[in-house]
Amino acid sequence: MRRENTKEIPLGKIKVGGKNPIWVEAMGRENPAKIRESIREIREAQEEGCEIFRLAVPDEESLFGLSQIKKQVDLPLIADVHFNLELGIKAAQLGIDAVRVNPGTAGNKEKLEELIKVLYDKNLALRIGANTGSLPLHYREKNRVEALFDSVEELISITEKNNFRNIILSAKSTDIEETIAIYDKLSRAFSYPLHVGLTEAGEGEEGIVKSSIALGIILREGIGNNIRVSLTAPDPVSETRVAWSILEALKLRSKGLEIISCPTCARRKGDVVALTRDFKQKVKERKIKIVGKVAIMGCEVNGPGEAREADWGLAFAPRGKALLFSRGERIKMVKQEEAEEELIRLITKEMEEKKP
Amino acid sequence: MRRENTKEIPLGKIKVGGKNPIWVEAMGRENPAKIRESIREIREAQEEGCEIFRLAVPDEESLFGLSQIKKQVDLPLIADVHFNLELGIKAAQLGIDAVRVNPGTAGNKEKLEELIKVLYDKNLALRIGANTGSLPLHYREKNRVEALFDSVEELISITEKNNFRNIILSAKSTDIEETIAIYDKLSRAFSYPLHVGLTEAGEGEEGIVKSSIALGIILREGIGNNIRVSLTAPDPVSETRVAWSILEALKLRSKGLEIISCPTCARRKGDVVALTRDFKQKVKERKIKIVGKVAIMGCEVNGPGEAREADWGLAFAPRGKALLFSRGERIKMVKQEEAEEELIRLITKEMEEKKP
Repeated sequence: MRRENTKEIPLGKIKVGGKNPIWVEAMGRENPAKIRESIREIREAQEEGCEIFRLAVPDEESLFGLSQIKKQVDLPLIADVHFNLELGIKAAQLGIDAVRVNPGTAGNKEKLEELIKVLYDKNLALRIGANTGSLPLHYREKNRVEALFDSVEELISITEKNNFRNIILSAKSTDIEETIAIYDKLSRAFSYPLHVGLTEAGEGEEGIVKSSIALGIILREGIGNNIRVSLTAPDPVSETRVAWSILEALKLRSKGLEIISCPTCARRKGDVVALTRDFKQKVKERKIKIVGKVAIMGCEVNGPGEAREADWGLAFAPRGKALLFSRGERIKMVKQEEAEEELIRLITKEMEEKKP
Repeated sequence: MRRENTKEIPLGKIKVGGKNPIWVEAMGRENPAKIRESIREIREAQEEGCEIFRLAVPDEESLFGLSQIKKQVDLPLIADVHFNLELGIKAAQLGIDAVRVNPGTAGNKEKLEELIKVLYDKNLALRIGANTGSLPLHYREKNRVEALFDSVEELISITEKNNFRNIILSAKSTDIEETIAIYDKLSRAFSYPLHVGLTEAGEGEEGIVKSSIALGIILREGIGNNIRVSLTAPDPVSETRVAWSILEALKLRSKGLEIISCPTCARRKGDVVALTRDFKQKVKERKIKIVGKVAIMGCEVNGPGEAREADWGLAFAPRGKALLFSRGERIKMVKQEEAEEELIRLITKEMEEKKP
């Protein structure tokens, strides 16, 4: 089932599934017992575009922290519980928006039914999230994709028997092909919204590459209602940024600004790398809300061509000059040292003029 | 036509196309006129896994540099020429392995035929590489995918009329969907090997994400004989590393080591981020050639599961301990501060024992 045809599930102030946007989720690194640090981490992720935040709840102390955090942030919060579902029940009673359980660590059926009852009464959500790293013991002999599927299905059947259907599903593998296969299977079998991710993608560029390929392929097939990028990184900011980059690259969502910039070579007539980095930084710092495509190009080969196709463009030219473009037209030739500010001025001026 | 069924084209000491590996190409930032700097840049890229190196040849000075560089490096070299094909002719005479021309800047047909004659006589290769930033004027009114295709086809017909078939094709757009569409079209129409890339992908994570999605999808469809990742970056090292990450993520090629590491959360019992980074660094510095999958995990939820599936694994445990695994079996519990070296020792010992 394509994403827009899935059920719509309440999650705090938003809804997941159906025609809602593909939400960006991130997970905290801090223990919620550290209240101040957790709140800072959540706000930093939110600043970067995080829309759903998940926190591990490993013990009673973190449960208390969670109740305090909930009062001070306005993002939908999900409590991640393993082994001890009692923590999930209490989190739900304390006002959390959803609980995530893992079929491999969900424990006994009675506790799960108790949790479902609380979620049902308060109209909260349950994410059933399986993972190749923690498959239930009795499925471990199976093919991993089947094991993921069967273990999710087993929990769904319990929730449905209890007449509870506020469910979001996920099943993640560390392997790209397995992840593509399991989401294909889930999307064919169920009408619940899907949370998509590749688990334990790794550190640095490798993690970004793996996640981009897996999520890129799955999202492009029309599958997935919210995403999380699982990078080995010290905070949830970079996973939020990468998640947005994936959605923007696929044109599924947009924060407004798209930058086209060349890799530079011996033909460049100016420092494209420095100007591009600096431009991104300045736009962010000055909170300039650009909607459109900006091309920053090093020379006369692809420069004017790309600059013409973009909403605004800058192409370095010989003799210390740079040419500015706006929607296909050459605007003016400027000195390179003034080019960046001239470009920002041009963009802000034209956006101002366009305002009603 | 799938990659393994394409023609095989000579390129210096290697061949491109057919059943050959998917080669990693990078492009220099330095002007070849700067001989020493260019050689350093080529060697750094080669160290990272670059197998084909392309240099822009904007003028006579860079041509001289090229002839000197060629004597001192052992990678196949491609001269990138625009506007003035005479530079390509001279580069071919000076011993370069291939010339890249762009339909949008190739100039008049007579010069192209002269270039083809030299390439033919010396059994060198020609890459015909179109780009949305520099489409020929007479195609600019067309749909961009058609314009890319038609402009490539026009040059192919000239080379084929001259009975020259050592051709590698590329056609790049800044747009993911256009790039997927044009490579699909090229692979159906021609049996020449394809060089795949998304042009002007951009700077930082955005560039990595865009390239990973586009190349991931195209390569996974069985298309593409060599790749280049066009990142806005100061040197060709990072584009080489990202190209390899893409090929490894898709299991199309392998440098040997795959690392699975968790994103860490409040449940972690040790510093996964630091250990993973440090482990990668140490393995590289000490030139330890690991062949296999290593899992580095923060806790008891997915830790032992992933560690079991990997060839070697480390899962942090409570009370300052870490558990080491080898091919599914628990090896020993160690102190966290000794865990990294213990893991490296375990891996090198077992690899040593496996040697014939």
